[in-house]
Amino acid sequence: MSEENENIQFQLTDELIEQVEQFIEAQNDKELHKLLDEFHYADIAEILDELNLEEAVYVIKLLDSDTTSDILMELDEDNREKVLKQLSAKEIAEEVGELDTDDAADIIAELPEARQKDVIDQIEDEEHKAEITELLAYDENSAGGLMAKELVKVYETWTVAGCMRRIRGQAKEVTRVHSIYVVNKEEKLIGRLSLKDLIVAKSEQKIADLVKVNVDFVNVHDDVEDVAKIMAKYDLEAIPVVDENQILLGRITIDDIVDVLKEEADKDYQMAAGITGDVEADDSILELTRARLPWLFLGLVGGIGAFLIMEGFEGLFTGKAVVLFFFTPLIAAMAGNVGVQSSAIIVQGLANDDVRGSVNSRLIKEMLLAALNGVILALFLFLFVWAFKGEINTALAISVSLVAVIIVAGLIGTFVPLFLNKRGIDPAIATGPFITTSNDILGILLYFWIAKMILGI
Amino acid sequence: MSEENENIQFQLTDELIEQVEQFIEAQNDKELHKLLDEFHYADIAEILDELNLEEAVYVIKLLDSDTTSDILMELDEDNREKVLKQLSAKEIAEEVGELDTDDAADIIAELPEARQKDVIDQIEDEEHKAEITELLAYDENSAGGLMAKELVKVYETWTVAGCMRRIRGQAKEVTRVHSIYVVNKEEKLIGRLSLKDLIVAKSEQKIADLVKVNVDFVNVHDDVEDVAKIMAKYDLEAIPVVDENQILLGRITIDDIVDVLKEEADKDYQMAAGITGDVEADDSILELTRARLPWLFLGLVGGIGAFLIMEGFEGLFTGKAVVLFFFTPLIAAMAGNVGVQSSAIIVQGLANDDVRGSVNSRLIKEMLLAALNGVILALFLFLFVWAFKGEINTALAISVSLVAVIIVAGLIGTFVPLFLNKRGIDPAIATGPFITTSNDILGILLYFWIAKMILGI
Repeated sequence: MSEENENIQFQLTDELIEQVEQFIEAQNDKELHKLLDEFHYADIAEILDELNLEEAVYVIKLLDSDTTSDILMELDEDNREKVLKQLSAKEIAEEVGELDTDDAADIIAELPEARQKDVIDQIEDEEHKAEITELLAYDENSAGGLMAKELVKVYETWTVAGCMRRIRGQAKEVTRVHSIYVVNKEEKLIGRLSLKDLIVAKSEQKIADLVKVNVDFVNVHDDVEDVAKIMAKYDLEAIPVVDENQILLGRITIDDIVDVLKEEADKDYQMAAGITGDVEADDSILELTRARLPWLFLGLVGGIGAFLIMEGFEGLFTGKAVVLFFFTPLIAAMAGNVGVQSSAIIVQGLANDDVRGSVNSRLIKEMLLAALNGVILALFLFLFVWAFKGEINTALAISVSLVAVIIVAGLIGTFVPLFLNKRGIDPAIATGPFITTSNDILGILLYFWIAKMILGI
Repeated sequence: MSEENENIQFQLTDELIEQVEQFIEAQNDKELHKLLDEFHYADIAEILDELNLEEAVYVIKLLDSDTTSDILMELDEDNREKVLKQLSAKEIAEEVGELDTDDAADIIAELPEARQKDVIDQIEDEEHKAEITELLAYDENSAGGLMAKELVKVYETWTVAGCMRRIRGQAKEVTRVHSIYVVNKEEKLIGRLSLKDLIVAKSEQKIADLVKVNVDFVNVHDDVEDVAKIMAKYDLEAIPVVDENQILLGRITIDDIVDVLKEEADKDYQMAAGITGDVEADDSILELTRARLPWLFLGLVGGIGAFLIMEGFEGLFTGKAVVLFFFTPLIAAMAGNVGVQSSAIIVQGLANDDVRGSVNSRLIKEMLLAALNGVILALFLFLFVWAFKGEINTALAISVSLVAVIIVAGLIGTFVPLFLNKRGIDPAIATGPFITTSNDILGILLYFWIAKMILGI
């Protein structure tokens, strides 16, 4: 029987892409249809991402709009933008007509503003048009920007039998029935039911007697990250969205949340690596430069700062103290590493709502932690310098300042994200190059100060 | 009506925690019950995470096991371990008896091996016991380790009416009915149905005529990360798990995948920051040191390497060339930053299956990118050094070597994760301190070489 099942181990091979390209080249629509009809729309999107624009548009125009609309949603964002440019407003409106309202609104929002109205005007289904227009008005980072209008809604006064009958109609439009939302006659959300509850219930029972009133919901203006946190925390697969008056407006499903979580994680990861602007390995060199250069420039300025500091200590260039200069890369690296470690833990803790307690207690903990790490590392460095250079004073000066540098770097790495968070700024910007650069400079300055003091020069 | 709805904006305030602590102190079980019964189990878990161990155990012993089992699952892992130590095997078995098989197996797997058997022996429900024992045999990173045995299964020979009747029985045990899995008489998965399909169908129809045979599934030994990718790609909310013979063994639901994705993202983020071992801000100083010190030690060794290189170039300490030493922190920082940027993009691309094409084309692209960034930055540095020191040769030497260092750092950052990935090693270890340290050393070496050549000294 297993041959009847879809092979989910879809492999995007060069042979497959060549095959598709050959069929397009030969305009062999029949074979192309036969080949592509075997695949899931998400797989076809992966194939199209590898084709050139002309070829991709050829496939989009060939296949039915109920498949191509799903393919469009799965395409790489840059490729989707290019493909949409090649389609007429009417063609886009047809694609959009096949999509759920949330996806439809997302596609339209990506279009240049001038085209948005053209496309909306061409949508045939008036209800769909009105719903999409409503969704477009919400901020894309709000619950309203993520929700879909498709849901199954019943009134508390209905019976189970009546409910089942009417659900049959509504459910056809809803891809997945997670929950049935129960509203009163003013359309206010009062609770929910599962299909399972309905099936288990007796047909003459009133909905009002079955409804679970302890229902989670979010406000249409809530931030999507907060919605994601709530859904993950309470293990919800769908959550209803209401306005200030508790009127049911839409619902958000877990698959959209999975995408939000993934995007957030990717963004934070890139931020920590000194990359801004949600780029991918396949983006153009210019796009990648725009994402990377500003942070490198920050590093350059920091390096110039380090140069100025070292030049200020040029007087130390006497005999034995010269060795101090050879350890600046070590000091800078340790300051940077410790700073990134401590800030990453705080940034992640803040994102997961794990960080409680006062700023002072965090700083004291980080100080102890950095001191412990610093002393272990400094001991090792002391032994190395002593053994290698045979100068116990130099070894002492370098090691003691390493401990100080590590403690200060840990404190800065802890304090800066906490401070930014208090000010309502995304603490994630405080990781990576930002912390590394400031710790580099401060670390080197501190190092020379302390070493100079200890050596008495 | 809105006051009937659960307030999802649960706030963990100090007052609330104090209130709970006071009730525990006074052994005021009635008020404690009244207070906690208002909250969702995930919220109670947050409260318990803030209490000391004795207080947390007091609450766990007070509440009913159907609530406390869910609370246990939501507790911070370290706290759960401590609480479980305070419970008898029989008490744990009772908690486990209330949980779905996947969660039950997870709890038991966390116990010391000696206790595992004791707890399993005490589970009363023989079927539950057998299922949990089966799940414990799978690797925790495999589909088998993630799946639950709870699912709704029907035979292809049944009618819709018969199906509905029997589903009522099965569904009571299953928290959420995502899909109804259809098997043949050999228990082989042949397809699926949704509750919606059943409701819309006529009661005398045969399941065999309704079943959707294009069903995604995974093998019980598949890696959880691959399962997560498949479910995210195809927007699945549940996926059946089968063995080599296509026999239906269990199912994985999207909420478990959300947890997997979150853990993965957290792990990669920490790895990039030089932290290993899945620690949190609230872990002990010793645990945090264990996670951070190895990477700092790597940085220290790298710093010593830089020292040795610089000492090797000590001969350059003549008049004008001294300024070269002042720019080593800048060179090291730029090499590190570029390396981290390029490796992060590749690591992320590999994780998202975005990286296609040959290694050579990647390296050529990164070389062009690094060259572009490098030339812009070097131009700026050239002007600074020239203006500041008035020595065009020195300025030229430093800037030219900066370009070379940036290109090499970019190539290493691109090549190393690609190489590790080809070798089947997690490329994520190649980000953060690893790349920074190796680029620091190589960058400084390259810098002095090139600068020495240009200055002809």
